[in-house]
Amino acid sequence: MRVTDRREETVVYVAVCGPDPAPEGIAAQAESVGRGLARAGAVLVCGGLGGAMEAAASGAAAEGGLVVGLLPGIDRSAANDFVDVALPTGMGEMRNALIVRAADAVVAVGGEFGTLSEIALALKAGKPVVGLGTWELTRGSGDAADEIVRVADPEEAVETALRLARAAR
Amino acid sequence: MRVTDRREETVVYVAVCGPDPAPEGIAAQAESVGRGLARAGAVLVCGGLGGAMEAAASGAAAEGGLVVGLLPGIDRSAANDFVDVALPTGMGEMRNALIVRAADAVVAVGGEFGTLSEIALALKAGKPVVGLGTWELTRGSGDAADEIVRVADPEEAVETALRLARAAR
Amino acid sequence: MRVTDRREETVVYVAVCGPDPAPEGIAAQAESVGRGLARAGAVLVCGGLGGAMEAAASGAAAEGGLVVGLLPGIDRSAANDFVDVALPTGMGEMRNALIVRAADAVVAVGGEFGTLSEIALALKAGKPVVGLGTWELTRGSGDAADEIVRVADPEEAVETALRLARAAR
Amino acid sequence: MRVTDRREETVVYVAVCGPDPAPEGIAAQAESVGRGLARAGAVLVCGGLGGAMEAAASGAAAEGGLVVGLLPGIDRSAANDFVDVALPTGMGEMRNALIVRAADAVVAVGGEFGTLSEIALALKAGKPVVGLGTWELTRGSGDAADEIVRVADPEEAVETALRLARAAR
Repeated sequence: MRVTDRREETVVYVAVCGPDPAPEGIAAQAESVGRGLARAGAVLVCGGLGGAMEAAASGAAAEGGLVVGLLPGIDRSAANDFVDVALPTGMGEMRNALIVRAADAVVAVGGEFGTLSEIALALKAGKPVVGLGTWELTRGSGDAADEIVRVADPEEAVETALRLARAAR
Repeated sequence: MRVTDRREETVVYVAVCGPDPAPEGIAAQAESVGRGLARAGAVLVCGGLGGAMEAAASGAAAEGGLVVGLLPGIDRSAANDFVDVALPTGMGEMRNALIVRAADAVVAVGGEFGTLSEIALALKAGKPVVGLGTWELTRGSGDAADEIVRVADPEEAVETALRLARAAR
Repeated sequence: MRVTDRREETVVYVAVCGPDPAPEGIAAQAESVGRGLARAGAVLVCGGLGGAMEAAASGAAAEGGLVVGLLPGIDRSAANDFVDVALPTGMGEMRNALIVRAADAVVAVGGEFGTLSEIALALKAGKPVVGLGTWELTRGSGDAADEIVRVADPEEAVETALRLARAAR
Repeated sequence: MRVTDRREETVVYVAVCGPDPAPEGIAAQAESVGRGLARAGAVLVCGGLGGAMEAAASGAAAEGGLVVGLLPGIDRSAANDFVDVALPTGMGEMRNALIVRAADAVVAVGGEFGTLSEIALALKAGKPVVGLGTWELTRGSGDAADEIVRVADPEEAVETALRLARAAR
């Protein structure tokens, strides 16, 4: 994979969000999602730290993909070992909004409150969110907020995210 | 109310979040919450625009409270008429993270995805969130994320938010 | 001064920027600028910490003015004693861009690199910058960047900032 | 050059800042700086748009380097053709602070107020700034702020930036 591939207009950026630390099953799913995205030539965007972020990054790296890590602190060395482009933001959790802006689609795998903020910001921006065992949301009115596209496994997550990301561009 | 009251250490800042536009019932609740917070001498923080933000601000203004509006755009005149301190941020929805950082506690009244992002960022930061007819959240694991403190009416929202905000300082 | 005065459209927001710590002469000038701005009913915006920020805030507070402090950290208690509205941003020096966005005009009194960044961001945004003993800037081409409006004393700084701020609205 | 090279700890990130649009001489210098940085394996960080940013990016791309563009808007397609990793931030000129945080050293080539803000923010953060025909700064006290390391040509700019960036890590 040449670096210049990423200059083509068809390249999509997909964020993978999930908990840190991550339960084993979640990490395995995130790793598979990272692999699949890299195989398809997508740029993986993540928060650059451990848990599901690291698992997704390691999967992408194993397939020769490009991994961008948007770090909350100002120290680049906080990035996990699989991040190619490690960008300290110094914005703390506010950087979750940057992750969403950098992505054409978001895949949420499991997740805690950080992931929930990324889901919310993506949906607010009208960006596709693919959910794998992640938050279920019900509005105060009782309406399910079914804007998250639920998938059953990592393969479906990858396929769905790529399709929606391409359509969103 | 003297301006210098706000220099006292006991002053708390409470964010009120909710939809824009807001259904009538939601707006009425937000307005009551704004009134109650102002009566207690709290500084009201909001997104500065319409809907629940404007309703809360108008309630606080009616009681002589101080209203801070953190605007998504760069134009101060976008603020609703009840904002005392209107601060354009130019950060778009990323300013939701600023609203949370400016607050000692967050009251969510109803709400759409912007409100959900504020709930998530507040809970991630360990700040108290009081919910009035707002999102119900269930983790992918099936566990309810009951960190939102549910209340039944605006009076209870105000009392709970003030108590938790003071404890959090 | 009623809080509601600040809801009038004619209220202007002026940022006062300068070094922390501040030499005595600089602090005295910043204090005078803060006094003058408050007497004219302007909202004073600053970085909320010590040195010139604190001096300007104390001057404004002595005249009953409203002082907004946009703090770099996440801890409200870092604000100096003269800030009415203390907003932790958690963005570090990036909050200098917020200070500029919140202001209709910027007064730079002396100053180090933080002040220089505020001057630069304001000029980039086309906002008026009034300089009192502050940076002199020469482009690489040798052209002086005389976009800073130089003044001789605090009174002229206040008068010029208010005039330019009102014209810029 | 393998993507995984960038995971090595010795990789440095250097920001190249300058005007947009850029006079021909400035663009030629920025292009040479980009080439030199890429040949040395550095990651080039820039604002992703035209002028000196595009010139530096095109130089780096011609040598197979990796180019990161931190865009002010929310539209990825605003990036110039030589950016590999194009990240919309939606923060406007506030993203200049992100460019500085992402860099181990900053090279300023010529430049207008945006460049000046990057110089100021880098110096404030204690990061090395290499200047090629860029701003000359004199404090209000009359002291030259000679923290910018002045160089005579692009080759010296590259060599100096790399040396200082490595020392700063």
